Amino acid sequence: MANVCRLRLDVLKPHKPNAYDFALALSQLDATWKVVLEVLEIDQSTESICLDVVGKHIDFEKIQAKINELGASVHSIDAVETNGG
Amino acid sequence: MANVCRLRLDVLKPHKPNAYDFALALSQLDATWKVVLEVLEIDQSTESICLDVVGKHIDFEKIQAKINELGASVHSIDAVETNGG
Amino acid sequence: MANVCRLRLDVLKPHKPNAYDFALALSQLDATWKVVLEVLEIDQSTESICLDVVGKHIDFEKIQAKINELGASVHSIDAVETNGG
Amino acid sequence: MANVCRLRLDVLKPHKPNAYDFALALSQLDATWKVVLEVLEIDQSTESICLDVVGKHIDFEKIQAKINELGASVHSIDAVETNGG
Amino acid sequence: MANVCRLRLDVLKPHKPNAYDFALALSQLDATWKVVLEVLEIDQSTESICLDVVGKHIDFEKIQAKINELGASVHSIDAVETNGG
Amino acid sequence: MANVCRLRLDVLKPHKPNAYDFALALSQLDATWKVVLEVLEIDQSTESICLDVVGKHIDFEKIQAKINELGASVHSIDAVETNGG
Amino acid sequence: MANVCRLRLDVLKPHKPNAYDFALALSQLDATWKVVLEVLEIDQSTESICLDVVGKHIDFEKIQAKINELGASVHSIDAVETNGG
Repeated sequence: MANVCRLRLDVLKPHKPNAYDFALALSQLDATWKVVLEVLEIDQSTESICLDVVGKHIDFEKIQAKINELGASVHSIDAVETNGG
Repeated sequence: MANVCRLRLDVLKPHKPNAYDFALALSQLDATWKVVLEVLEIDQSTESICLDVVGKHIDFEKIQAKINELGASVHSIDAVETNGG
Repeated sequence: MANVCRLRLDVLKPHKPNAYDFALALSQLDATWKVVLEVLEIDQSTESICLDVVGKHIDFEKIQAKINELGASVHSIDAVETNGG
Repeated sequence: MANVCRLRLDVLKPHKPNAYDFALALSQLDATWKVVLEVLEIDQSTESICLDVVGKHIDFEKIQAKINELGASVHSIDAVETNGG
Repeated sequence: MANVCRLRLDVLKPHKPNAYDFALALSQLDATWKVVLEVLEIDQSTESICLDVVGKHIDFEKIQAKINELGASVHSIDAVETNGG
Repeated sequence: MANVCRLRLDVLKPHKPNAYDFALALSQLDATWKVVLEVLEIDQSTESICLDVVGKHIDFEKIQAKINELGASVHSIDAVETNGG
Repeated sequence: MANVCRLRLDVLKPHKPNAYDFALALSQLDATWKVVLEVLEIDQSTESICLDVVGKHIDFEKIQAKINELGASVHSIDAVETNGG
């Protein structure tokens, strides 16, 4: 079945939870997902991060829901990589 | 038989479907195709993306038809890689 | 026997055939040839492309004849790689 | 269990202990942790360093406590990499 | 016996023979030699090329003689790599 | 036991001993140590060098003592890499 | 025994012998030495070259003597790499 194996998101998050807990929370969504979080910019109340999720059947909606739950928001989808059907 | 194994397209797409669903739809065209979608620019109503399709017997017309069906358009063919006859 | 294993050409082509069909036509010249076509510039009526042909016994004249047949022209030979005699 | 396998911190440290002893102290926190310390800037009384801790179950709080114990402070979390749950 | 295994030359050649035939002629000098020719600049009557000859017992004089025979000239020796005695 | 496996130092040395003898003297401190010395700048009476010592249980104090013995001085510790406890 | 396995020298040489013969002469000093010579600059009467000698027990004095014998001079030692004692 066609599935997404890499998803890159531009995310705006508050300082809490910190990047460590934020990444850990996302990686608990699925045992096959590797999460790579790079902090691009830190402002007074927010942090702009680049989030790569790599694995099998990466589920954007599931990730977006978790991101919102953590008080952050997806600014944009920057890259998507899929494996064939 | 000579066949295209890598095709790079410059595509202009509307915000909906998002890049995640757009890439997934294209990769369902053929089980051997890997789709790598990079969002280059986001404007008010469109997104300019670089689309790499890698696999066997990559069929430009089939891809172009799907792209149009998704409400987007091929701006240009940027690169083609083939294997011999 | 000494033979050319990689040939890089700077080619000027009309929009038709498109880069996809153009590359496919060239790769049908020989089962061992891989064709990598990169579109460098697109003008109103022409496209400037970088063409790499990789394989065994790459035959410049055969390629040039096909290029002309497709309505394009070799602007220059940019690189040649050979294997010994 | 989801765990962090790479953590990059921006740390401000005093000149004592020196970077050698500082890195050694951190790497004693866990047998699986590799510590890579790069000194970015040296001022009159402090040194700004980039600290990468790589291994299994990297524990930010444990590292932060040790850093503070050594008289330094975490300026920011710059990158986090996790393995799935 | 000490021998040269890579020789890089800066060569000035006329348009005829073209770079394809020029490289092929040089590679016929020795079955072990690979010739990589990169065209750096094309002027009205000459082409400035970078010529790498890689193999065993690369013989500069033999190559220089062939280059002159083809109506070109060695502008400079840019790099030499040898294997021990 | 936690140990340092790579140490990068910025060192200021006099012209004598030359960089060749300087590096050789340092590498005699321990059979497992590889020394890579890069000369960054040469002034009238001194040379600024980047010194990488790679191996097991790299001992900063032992290296610093030898550097001083050779008439040079450690300007700064630039990087440290350790293996876990 | 500690020994130098890579030595990089900045050398000023006259046009004769040419870089080809110069490199060949140096590589005859020892069967284990590979010589990589890169011509950095060519002036009216001299050539500034970067010389890498790679192998076992690279002997700076032996190389310097040969360089002087060939009418050239070592401008500086730029890098040294050693293996432990």
